[in-house]
Amino acid sequence: MTVNLSLPQKADLTPVKGFAMGIAEAGIKKANRKDLLVMTLSPGSQVAGVFTLNRFCAAPVQVCRGHLALDGTKGEIRALVVNTGNANAGTGEQGMKHALETCQALAKELKLNPEQILPFSTGVILEPLPIQKIISALPKAVANLGEDHWFDAAEAIMTTDTQPKASSVTVQTPAGPVVLTGICKGAGMIHPNMATMLGFIATDAGFAPGLLTTLTREVADLSFNAITIDGDTSTNDSFIIMATGQSSVSIQSTSDPSYVVVREALITLARKLAQMIVRDGEGATKFMTIEVLGGKTPEECKLVAKAVAHSPLVKTAFFASDPNLGRILAAIGYAGIQDLDVNRVQMWLGDVWVAKNGGRNPDYQEVDGQQVMQAPEITVKIDLGRGTASQTIWTCDLSHDYVSINADYRS
Amino acid sequence: MTVNLSLPQKADLTPVKGFAMGIAEAGIKKANRKDLLVMTLSPGSQVAGVFTLNRFCAAPVQVCRGHLALDGTKGEIRALVVNTGNANAGTGEQGMKHALETCQALAKELKLNPEQILPFSTGVILEPLPIQKIISALPKAVANLGEDHWFDAAEAIMTTDTQPKASSVTVQTPAGPVVLTGICKGAGMIHPNMATMLGFIATDAGFAPGLLTTLTREVADLSFNAITIDGDTSTNDSFIIMATGQSSVSIQSTSDPSYVVVREALITLARKLAQMIVRDGEGATKFMTIEVLGGKTPEECKLVAKAVAHSPLVKTAFFASDPNLGRILAAIGYAGIQDLDVNRVQMWLGDVWVAKNGGRNPDYQEVDGQQVMQAPEITVKIDLGRGTASQTIWTCDLSHDYVSINADYRS
Repeated sequence: MTVNLSLPQKADLTPVKGFAMGIAEAGIKKANRKDLLVMTLSPGSQVAGVFTLNRFCAAPVQVCRGHLALDGTKGEIRALVVNTGNANAGTGEQGMKHALETCQALAKELKLNPEQILPFSTGVILEPLPIQKIISALPKAVANLGEDHWFDAAEAIMTTDTQPKASSVTVQTPAGPVVLTGICKGAGMIHPNMATMLGFIATDAGFAPGLLTTLTREVADLSFNAITIDGDTSTNDSFIIMATGQSSVSIQSTSDPSYVVVREALITLARKLAQMIVRDGEGATKFMTIEVLGGKTPEECKLVAKAVAHSPLVKTAFFASDPNLGRILAAIGYAGIQDLDVNRVQMWLGDVWVAKNGGRNPDYQEVDGQQVMQAPEITVKIDLGRGTASQTIWTCDLSHDYVSINADYRS
Repeated sequence: MTVNLSLPQKADLTPVKGFAMGIAEAGIKKANRKDLLVMTLSPGSQVAGVFTLNRFCAAPVQVCRGHLALDGTKGEIRALVVNTGNANAGTGEQGMKHALETCQALAKELKLNPEQILPFSTGVILEPLPIQKIISALPKAVANLGEDHWFDAAEAIMTTDTQPKASSVTVQTPAGPVVLTGICKGAGMIHPNMATMLGFIATDAGFAPGLLTTLTREVADLSFNAITIDGDTSTNDSFIIMATGQSSVSIQSTSDPSYVVVREALITLARKLAQMIVRDGEGATKFMTIEVLGGKTPEECKLVAKAVAHSPLVKTAFFASDPNLGRILAAIGYAGIQDLDVNRVQMWLGDVWVAKNGGRNPDYQEVDGQQVMQAPEITVKIDLGRGTASQTIWTCDLSHDYVSINADYRS
């Protein structure tokens, strides 16, 4: 079940000049499914990434961090390799060895240094990566490289996702058009910082050194770090922006007039991709936007939004279309703002003002709340009444299917 | 469904001298069910309580705090009144008025000051308390007062509980025997600090002023504050210890030889009661003990234990009897210990050593993990390898029935 999520159309996914993808079936967990993706970048490209904060971060995440930290001294990043079916996490020294071997094997195929490769894995944790299967399938993925394989790439990185996730946009900047196309995956173990998600966006814009790194962090915070499904932060989350610089647009600083346009487009695209993950959240039947405003700081607004978004009681009430609003107030109350004056808290369900000055709005009619709850997309707005900061989080409900998916399958 | 939880036997619930209970059917939410409990204490009794830290704490919780803070200046606490079916939370000024009116009405019946009464409510949040129904039923509850009504009292405070929860113990101290009997309720919205739970323990021991207050906080931390079902902290949680002093045992200080015996008995009884709540957790099919040791501080051990106990992915894996241990490592990794060296982390499932030095134990066989997972009671032991502190949390799994219970009923 998905919430207002349509299948991406191949024709809508614009190729990005200088960026190619090749897919193979390596048989990592199951036979006859695309489970290996190689991506290559033309010389002169820039790559920046944001990774999970989980201390049990997977071996490939550690290798990515290491290779990016080399800062081009062993050659710029020129290729990425993603496998599904196994996360290569909780695998100790052997896991690190496997991640490096994957880079070495692909480097040999592409005549690059291993340090020019970023590896990614997603799937089951604590099981050894079947490295031979990956190495054997790499030549097939390389032979398949092409600029118009976005849809297949989106399919190749799926795990418990019910459908591929991809989107594309072309924007006009003062210096000419820029193409941005991205794919992502993730359906469970989704929580800011970050989700069990992989997100890759490529653009043909160029960036001055350093600029892309700052921008990637900013974009992640406003998109993939603002979604949550079950509050579980994965070991493998990675979000990568790749800029080939093959268009006429080369952005030298944040005051560059093209910067504003490309930044805005990146945020919009990344949010759309991140929200696709929520819309395809494990067992999701409702898409919920939790908007918290009137806080002293964005951090305390996020605390409250997360408490509401994570509460199993709130999530099951939304699944049931039951305006059990007391559960939301309870979550606000335990979010962790010690000096919260609940008498200043207001809450709206869609347009309906349900809680006024910390209590039930005397004008609130349950029938109105009930009506809002029927919709597949619902916004909960909370005003803390103590400042001007705000924060928004996107999440989904908790249904029978979430339990089934996570109890019945080894994911 | 409950996990190894047997029905308390009336004959096993020893009356506490000086402590009486009266039950009535007030029809607060449903007709023909016990939903009102009055408890009275003989003159000279002492009462101490620990309450929810939720900022949206219910009106009765605020009144309890206020009356206890008076410290006997308006007369000692002599009676308690509990209603189910409505939490009187998120009800604003009217809610406060209703809580005070409940005290006034009972005070009139018992010829006490309203400040000598502690009120408790549990049930749905954000709906007005049907105060007239309560006031009308109070005389019936008072007429029913008796020392041997423990079982009925346990039934009267149930909400989504599937069975009453009560336990009793008599211990020998150097100064003579002491009786301790307690009841509690709670099945969902259960999380340390505190659960949607009400817990009441009465004893015929006597205490010097102040001593019971410190002891109650200590007992709560080792029992009701160490359980979690869904991570939701309720608006109404209260844990009360009442000491009538009607036995030969009067404890004057912590160095009193009887103190050690009574303290130990209180902790054991409170833990047993708290664990009954987990065993009757909404939809519970498994009782899990999460033991974290080798931490630098008890606080960081608790962080890790809570992350594991709250993870929906871990909880659904236990429901499925699937030793998906990577999910536990992932939870340890995101618990919030920034400088955790995962290479020093060990993990056991029951007696089976599954994770060694941060990775899969090479000697671990999945069949051994599978066997442990079949049991209804499972201990997860985690050694952080960085200190000597430890912490234990009790929790249950996340099943289809949890979703059904919380989606289908307005609780």
